Amino acid sequence: MPLAEARFRTLAEAVRCDVDYPPFDRSVMDGYAVRAEDVRGAPVALEVVGELAAGTVSNRALRTGEAMQINTGAPLPDGADAVVRVEDTEADGAGGRVVIRKAVERGTFITRRAEYVRAGDVVLAAGSVLGPAQVGAAAAAGASRVTVYRQPQVAILSTGDELVEIDRRPEGGQIRNSNQHLLAALVRSAHAEAALLGTVGDDRVALRERIERGLSADVLCITGGASVGPLDLVPDVLRECGVTFHFQKMKIKPGRPIHFATGPSGGLVFALPGNPVSAFVGFELLVGPALAAVEGRPNNRPGLLRATLRGNIAATRDRRTYVPARGCVDGGGLLAEPVLWRGSGDPFGLAGANAMIMRPPGAAAVASGGEVSILLLGRI
Amino acid sequence: MPLAEARFRTLAEAVRCDVDYPPFDRSVMDGYAVRAEDVRGAPVALEVVGELAAGTVSNRALRTGEAMQINTGAPLPDGADAVVRVEDTEADGAGGRVVIRKAVERGTFITRRAEYVRAGDVVLAAGSVLGPAQVGAAAAAGASRVTVYRQPQVAILSTGDELVEIDRRPEGGQIRNSNQHLLAALVRSAHAEAALLGTVGDDRVALRERIERGLSADVLCITGGASVGPLDLVPDVLRECGVTFHFQKMKIKPGRPIHFATGPSGGLVFALPGNPVSAFVGFELLVGPALAAVEGRPNNRPGLLRATLRGNIAATRDRRTYVPARGCVDGGGLLAEPVLWRGSGDPFGLAGANAMIMRPPGAAAVASGGEVSILLLGRI
Repeated sequence: MPLAEARFRTLAEAVRCDVDYPPFDRSVMDGYAVRAEDVRGAPVALEVVGELAAGTVSNRALRTGEAMQINTGAPLPDGADAVVRVEDTEADGAGGRVVIRKAVERGTFITRRAEYVRAGDVVLAAGSVLGPAQVGAAAAAGASRVTVYRQPQVAILSTGDELVEIDRRPEGGQIRNSNQHLLAALVRSAHAEAALLGTVGDDRVALRERIERGLSADVLCITGGASVGPLDLVPDVLRECGVTFHFQKMKIKPGRPIHFATGPSGGLVFALPGNPVSAFVGFELLVGPALAAVEGRPNNRPGLLRATLRGNIAATRDRRTYVPARGCVDGGGLLAEPVLWRGSGDPFGLAGANAMIMRPPGAAAVASGGEVSILLLGRI
Repeated sequence: MPLAEARFRTLAEAVRCDVDYPPFDRSVMDGYAVRAEDVRGAPVALEVVGELAAGTVSNRALRTGEAMQINTGAPLPDGADAVVRVEDTEADGAGGRVVIRKAVERGTFITRRAEYVRAGDVVLAAGSVLGPAQVGAAAAAGASRVTVYRQPQVAILSTGDELVEIDRRPEGGQIRNSNQHLLAALVRSAHAEAALLGTVGDDRVALRERIERGLSADVLCITGGASVGPLDLVPDVLRECGVTFHFQKMKIKPGRPIHFATGPSGGLVFALPGNPVSAFVGFELLVGPALAAVEGRPNNRPGLLRATLRGNIAATRDRRTYVPARGCVDGGGLLAEPVLWRGSGDPFGLAGANAMIMRPPGAAAVASGGEVSILLLGRI
């Protein structure tokens, strides 16, 4: 696809530079192209025989006793082997001559042809993500088209009789389906495509129809209906649809009932709890890294960083526990403060979080100023 | 605009929740809704008089001696004041009754109506960026439409007779205009709009026409032509166009000649050096934070983090110096390794960088294992 449309896509084939880079010996400075041996006895006066702007090539070689004015980026004339910075020269009042005040070694202020890469060299490996710097590198290499992996398509399905669309006012026991929007935004921020399958109630037939549709996507992400109540049909219906479960629980908090399965045609299936914080944590820990793997990116599992706690956190019991937190930089280190979060059903507390504090099972309480481990969820 | 299209936009107005949240007293667990005083002497048997799934409201109140089966998220029936988890109960073989094995306090496993927020409460302040968690919060609050700032429009202009488009093979003294693509990707990654003004040679009339066009954008970003050579027309032409310069140099490396100005109609103008690393550093330090300010975001200037150096870096002279580096997490701390970078004209070395090491002026060399300060350029 065109490079200009490939931002944040993943390269399926390496990008090689099609020319030597730089394609010619060039000046790094504004100044004068000289022969180093001519200026060994500086100060010396040289005859100025040309003016070389970037983009222009000299039609004659530089001879002994001569200099050419040269701009940054301009190709060095034949015969020249060094550049003297304009600051180290003095224009001769009479014109046509320049006084070089400083001797230079051969090669000074020159970048040689192919000094950075040779034609055919790989500048971006397969698996590279085309962030801005990579787009710039590909452009310099002449890769106006690139071969990238298809973006994974993620089908998103929310289950529960209580759900209403967000533009409706919930009545009785209803609650808005905010997860659909949360997950779509998470999927798109992971540079994958989101296909919204909407909301389905606790109805076996409708659920099966919707799940079968979702299984044709690369990844199916279901929220809600994955708990242990008698009306939680999702695992049953998934099984009817021929998926193979790999696990159905994780010893984490929030989010114990998390199902991971593969569909009959190889798609990945994640069933996450319906409460927004659990869905968020499940996405960050599992779905995001899975999308990277599906799209051919090398392991990009986020690492845990040490941070200083601001505020207090409780001891943990038998589960690894994730606490949404606000991280910031302070005096060269990281501070992390738990966000005001009123329980796993609270969709608002998350909005202040850019990190999660990770606490192992059986960890003691930590007071303000203590050390914790955090996962950054974005640029800090 | 519709929330579904507003990802990474900045709120111009706060989002308030239009209903109490949760909108009703609800169960946090699958189990049985009870009256706490009925189960004080547990184990006790209660009559099961109903079944409450999420989304359904009981049509009768709970009376003494009764329980209702209840699912996570379902509204509590009138008269009930606690939930007993299914794990702490036993179905009575005869049916119609349940044995509650554990006494509970009033309020156990219940989230009260409005416990998280009250109708009218602000859940996202103006200036918030709508990342995934914020989109989820807005959705839960019923904000299917949001009021956001316009995205800043950034005009990008590259100057230099040596530049050719990236799909052409450079000849003679030519070089590909990779900066246009680098900057467009940087602008879009900062969630602003990029308007490409293409390439213009060192021609005063053409340059003026193009700069005048660019001055109608919120931000004009020019690369190249900002050095001290006689053919560098950009500052002159900018002045002719009525801009006011605020500074024309920064004591940083790479990138000393960086111009910042404001246009006659208030647009911001940045003229960055033509070499890709300087352009990149200039964008990260100035243009990115400026775009955040233009779009109404609170100060998001990135902070410096301590990291352990892998590799060696030289002493600095009189300029603050930025060294492109690869950062990674190691044992809870950050490691930073300078990327293979062969000079400021090398557009390929940057591709491996996700951080910049910042070195103050007059800093000593640092050997592997020493401490350095880094700016993260993205999620690590």
